[in-house]
Amino acid sequence: MSKRIIVQKYGGTSVADVDRIKNVAKRVVKTKKAGNDVVVVVSALGDTTDELIGLALQVTNNPPERELDMLVSTGEQVSCALLAMAIHELGESAISFTGAQVGIITDNSFTKARIIDINARRIVDELKKKRIVIVAGFQGVNLNQDITTLGRGGSNLTAVALAKVLKAYSCEMNTDVEGVFTADPRIVRDARKIDRISYEEMFELASLGAQVLQPRSIEFAMKFGVPIHVRSSFSERTGTIISREVRAMEDIVVSGVALTKNEAKVTICDVPDRPGIAAKIFREIAKQDINVDMIVQNVSRTGATDMSFTVPENDLNKTIKVAKDISAKIRAGGVIFDKDIAKVSIVGIGMRSHSGVAAKMFEALAEKGINIEMISTSEIKISCVVGKKYGEDAVRAIHAKFGLGKKRNS
Amino acid sequence: MSKRIIVQKYGGTSVADVDRIKNVAKRVVKTKKAGNDVVVVVSALGDTTDELIGLALQVTNNPPERELDMLVSTGEQVSCALLAMAIHELGESAISFTGAQVGIITDNSFTKARIIDINARRIVDELKKKRIVIVAGFQGVNLNQDITTLGRGGSNLTAVALAKVLKAYSCEMNTDVEGVFTADPRIVRDARKIDRISYEEMFELASLGAQVLQPRSIEFAMKFGVPIHVRSSFSERTGTIISREVRAMEDIVVSGVALTKNEAKVTICDVPDRPGIAAKIFREIAKQDINVDMIVQNVSRTGATDMSFTVPENDLNKTIKVAKDISAKIRAGGVIFDKDIAKVSIVGIGMRSHSGVAAKMFEALAEKGINIEMISTSEIKISCVVGKKYGEDAVRAIHAKFGLGKKRNS
Repeated sequence: MSKRIIVQKYGGTSVADVDRIKNVAKRVVKTKKAGNDVVVVVSALGDTTDELIGLALQVTNNPPERELDMLVSTGEQVSCALLAMAIHELGESAISFTGAQVGIITDNSFTKARIIDINARRIVDELKKKRIVIVAGFQGVNLNQDITTLGRGGSNLTAVALAKVLKAYSCEMNTDVEGVFTADPRIVRDARKIDRISYEEMFELASLGAQVLQPRSIEFAMKFGVPIHVRSSFSERTGTIISREVRAMEDIVVSGVALTKNEAKVTICDVPDRPGIAAKIFREIAKQDINVDMIVQNVSRTGATDMSFTVPENDLNKTIKVAKDISAKIRAGGVIFDKDIAKVSIVGIGMRSHSGVAAKMFEALAEKGINIEMISTSEIKISCVVGKKYGEDAVRAIHAKFGLGKKRNS
Repeated sequence: MSKRIIVQKYGGTSVADVDRIKNVAKRVVKTKKAGNDVVVVVSALGDTTDELIGLALQVTNNPPERELDMLVSTGEQVSCALLAMAIHELGESAISFTGAQVGIITDNSFTKARIIDINARRIVDELKKKRIVIVAGFQGVNLNQDITTLGRGGSNLTAVALAKVLKAYSCEMNTDVEGVFTADPRIVRDARKIDRISYEEMFELASLGAQVLQPRSIEFAMKFGVPIHVRSSFSERTGTIISREVRAMEDIVVSGVALTKNEAKVTICDVPDRPGIAAKIFREIAKQDINVDMIVQNVSRTGATDMSFTVPENDLNKTIKVAKDISAKIRAGGVIFDKDIAKVSIVGIGMRSHSGVAAKMFEALAEKGINIEMISTSEIKISCVVGKKYGEDAVRAIHAKFGLGKKRNS
């Protein structure tokens, strides 16, 4: 009878030093001894990746991306070799592999490659030999045998992709938090760990800055239907299961409240209201590789309208420059901006079939006297921009209003 | 017309930090601009390899060798990526490769693998694209795609092997010394850089502790007839050419004087003088993986003889233990040892056809009142063991006696 395969991913903080690597080894061995086949995906030790990039930047301000991938991929190679050693030390057999060695084939987009195929033969062979298989996360190899990396959250992508091809029973993301919470526990004292959440909700939460999993990993898991178990490397407790929407979830209107503080608002004033003008504006901005988040434009009654949008704070200067150019070109009324904003959002699959959710959120803010500057909604998300200094109060107010801390529903 | 290919190897001290990597990049680009195709082999940055091994030893006292190779091979991957970046920064195109990527195929002896084949197709392709090719030294891959390392001096082996398959015009070993000297310049003030030396002489000098090149690399170069140019990474001067014996060399009786201080002498006393006894002793010692260097046994006139030999000081305790066991078994008279020894050797291909060389060496020592404890000779080498405190004086006396500092011959 074939055993069930569990894929466990451990992030950089879980393998930050030798003691933590030994701790991870113990967890892995325990999972193996419980009768599972175990495939482990590891990130680089602690801040190794940033240190390697720092080294590259000392050599050149503009490192070729192929060489950057060659360089930073060593981080995961180090951690997977050390973890294999730590497991040996505990008396279990383990073998480590680079992305290239286990046939993680990607396209040619260095530093942000996409996995196009995995040939898991070698992993399956080693599992048959009763070995624990350790795979360097975050990396692959293109068809030319050049090393590539998968970009931010790449190790999670590796884990999900392996779970998919190995038909794993579970894909555990071991991290430094206990799971996904109804709000950031540092802000909301009675924030509660969510037991189950849908990919869609998690995707919105992740996009909104819940730092547990990158949106790309969730998209990937959703695409392949791989259930994810987000849990802590430092405890034995069950964390949060992210999976397809299940009936029980539908009763839950709001799953969590998220806060984003690193955006800035830009407004192009008095934009002439004619067809194609919005396309023109945002095509110019996209050309500069600026990621626009919320866009709000009211219906114009005067023949001109204000066009507001938010961008990452890092991109603000670049954005102001291009917005001013556009404003001049289209004869708009100039550009104003505001860095002191926060975005508060609620996410919940149940919203789709419940009315009054938005009103309840706005009431929560009104009761605290917090002014709403922008509103944007999707099927399962409502976001409000407020003054930055009100951000945390807004989260607490909304969390309480929907009763998220005590029981699951509002 | 096809260009000449120059293989340049840079050791750990040559790429110890970002500034030195930039310096190496300049040298490489200069060689390329002089009209050559350039293939560069690099070691790991400074002490990286030792640091990685230290990390492994924090995890386990007994790291599996496969995983150790997985770990330490990252050192060269880092340095070759950084060097490629530094070359790009100077406006030349460069591409870095791991041992696996350029098809350096080895056997399965992890941590001390032997190269069995190199498929240089990828290197040749990249050279045709006018790129400088950087190869991670010290590493290869077995037929199972597991990463292997080549052991001490492995980067030199990589360079020699690449020079061979690429039919390189020259194989430069760039290091932190100007070349090979008639004696250690720290001991003998007027020691002179040797312009040309034969593989055989260099092999003996290397075995004797001239730290420029490992004996294994020289053996390898000799086997394939690859001429080696040992030179400094920090100067433009020509260093020492190591090649097949040439006529001019034959006039040189003694090429250099070497000193080894890390050996210890062990004597098994009153060994019964019967056939097979020496074989028995040294088979037992070899079983313990102890590398015996000199062995001296005088013809016995009493039916019992003293058997003396030298071993690396590190192995002394192990050796004493096994020697005592043997002594008891063969009913010898016990074991004595001496750590305070030094071995002084002269090497020269001309010795083969010149008599009186040994006498002259012994005279040099006698004139300084230095007692000789052991003597051992080969075709092109004479070694004397003396008290450790006399070692450096002995080197100076012999160096002067053979007139090595002023002109090449005695």
